[in-house]
Amino acid sequence: MLIVGERINSSRKSIARAILEKDKAFIKNEATIQTVAGADFIDINAGQFAGKETEYLSWLVEIVQEATHVPLCLDSADPEAIKAVLPLVDKPPMINSITLERRLFDTLLPVILGQKCKVIALCQSGRRVAQSPSEKLELAGELIENLTRSGLPIDQIFIDPLVFPLATDTGSGKATLAAISSIKTGYPGVQTICGLTNISFGLPERRLINRTFLVSAISMGLDATIIDPTDKQLFAALKAVLLIDDQDGFAQNYIAAFRQGHLT
Amino acid sequence: MLIVGERINSSRKSIARAILEKDKAFIKNEATIQTVAGADFIDINAGQFAGKETEYLSWLVEIVQEATHVPLCLDSADPEAIKAVLPLVDKPPMINSITLERRLFDTLLPVILGQKCKVIALCQSGRRVAQSPSEKLELAGELIENLTRSGLPIDQIFIDPLVFPLATDTGSGKATLAAISSIKTGYPGVQTICGLTNISFGLPERRLINRTFLVSAISMGLDATIIDPTDKQLFAALKAVLLIDDQDGFAQNYIAAFRQGHLT
Repeated sequence: MLIVGERINSSRKSIARAILEKDKAFIKNEATIQTVAGADFIDINAGQFAGKETEYLSWLVEIVQEATHVPLCLDSADPEAIKAVLPLVDKPPMINSITLERRLFDTLLPVILGQKCKVIALCQSGRRVAQSPSEKLELAGELIENLTRSGLPIDQIFIDPLVFPLATDTGSGKATLAAISSIKTGYPGVQTICGLTNISFGLPERRLINRTFLVSAISMGLDATIIDPTDKQLFAALKAVLLIDDQDGFAQNYIAAFRQGHLT
Repeated sequence: MLIVGERINSSRKSIARAILEKDKAFIKNEATIQTVAGADFIDINAGQFAGKETEYLSWLVEIVQEATHVPLCLDSADPEAIKAVLPLVDKPPMINSITLERRLFDTLLPVILGQKCKVIALCQSGRRVAQSPSEKLELAGELIENLTRSGLPIDQIFIDPLVFPLATDTGSGKATLAAISSIKTGYPGVQTICGLTNISFGLPERRLINRTFLVSAISMGLDATIIDPTDKQLFAALKAVLLIDDQDGFAQNYIAAFRQGHLT
């Protein structure tokens, strides 16, 4: 199970402030606490700053790499921003994200190939976003075919089947869970990833819904997730489901987390 | 999703005391709080009292039926005890439980048939207990074949694939989850049920493991569970997974539980 720490995102007010004020200590602390909590990648996003995104993302790359040995997840909707910061990155990063949209493909793929990047591929194209399990599987298939045909090894591809707010589509969680299972079965070797925040939008006790969905998704075969690993209850649920899913050896991580007081 | 409330079990000291002292008020309160928390069946068990089990189980039937309209789940390893108390029961009960063991079958089936009882059928025979997913599926198949051939409609059968302590078999949770899915696929119309307490035996923070396993199991298709519905965090996780699994209409139960302060 790979954990991508989501906290360094400019959509959060505290992060946007720290970026604007060049508050290195604040950003470094955000990187450190996620590292300590077990993040395998640290997501960095400066997407709030149109026109300045590349500059700010470059600064984040530099600062976060000073704070942690954990590799980065470069998070941008602008392929030029990702392309610009890639040469600054020490370790093979994760790219967040690519879709079937032509512009993304043509810009990103040439620079990604040969870099051992992991790539998050969203089940959407320019025209459409996959809603039903069969649409998600179909778009996943197109993504995998296009990416592998271009030379990207299948085990570097992380398909995100996408999940939408239950408040407007009560079937969206179930559809995404079914898609995780069918994508894993249909395309052996491919990985799956999912963010959690969308699903609970507009409902109360969002973190309860988010962590419950994570448990369900891991049971269906999810390989990676974009979360805040410092959320205590989410962390406890994660340790418990990895134990139940037999991904924890002889329960050593679960018991260590308990001894450190992280399960309550 | 059917909830069987597990609290009135003589293995709990407070219940054993109440039975011995004929403390009607205590037992009635246990029935009431589980009813209010949403139990669909109230399990009653007097199995601690060898020689007196039938007498005490009869008393429990009478007292619990005075307290609640919710039907009973008659819980005994002794088929004669179940047979003896069945005539006292107002509404079609659930029977907990039957196995492939000949003695159980021959004693219980004749009295169960024609009573519209729901029957919990454990994936074990006299000789063996199913460990792997394929063994669980095989024993489930034998149970279903024997029960339906005897005349029990398939939708009254609740297969319990059984789960064993992760502390001694780290693969047991995953095996049970896989079995739930394959039993549902292999035998359309049959129901599945599972208790939670076994899985966490010998590990810390047992209730965290129990409720996480419940979420996973419901995502795999579990139809019923034997739990303490008054456990607040378990209840919250249950409401959240039913929402995610699209078993909550337009989230009305989830939102009602939130308004009543039951999700935190």
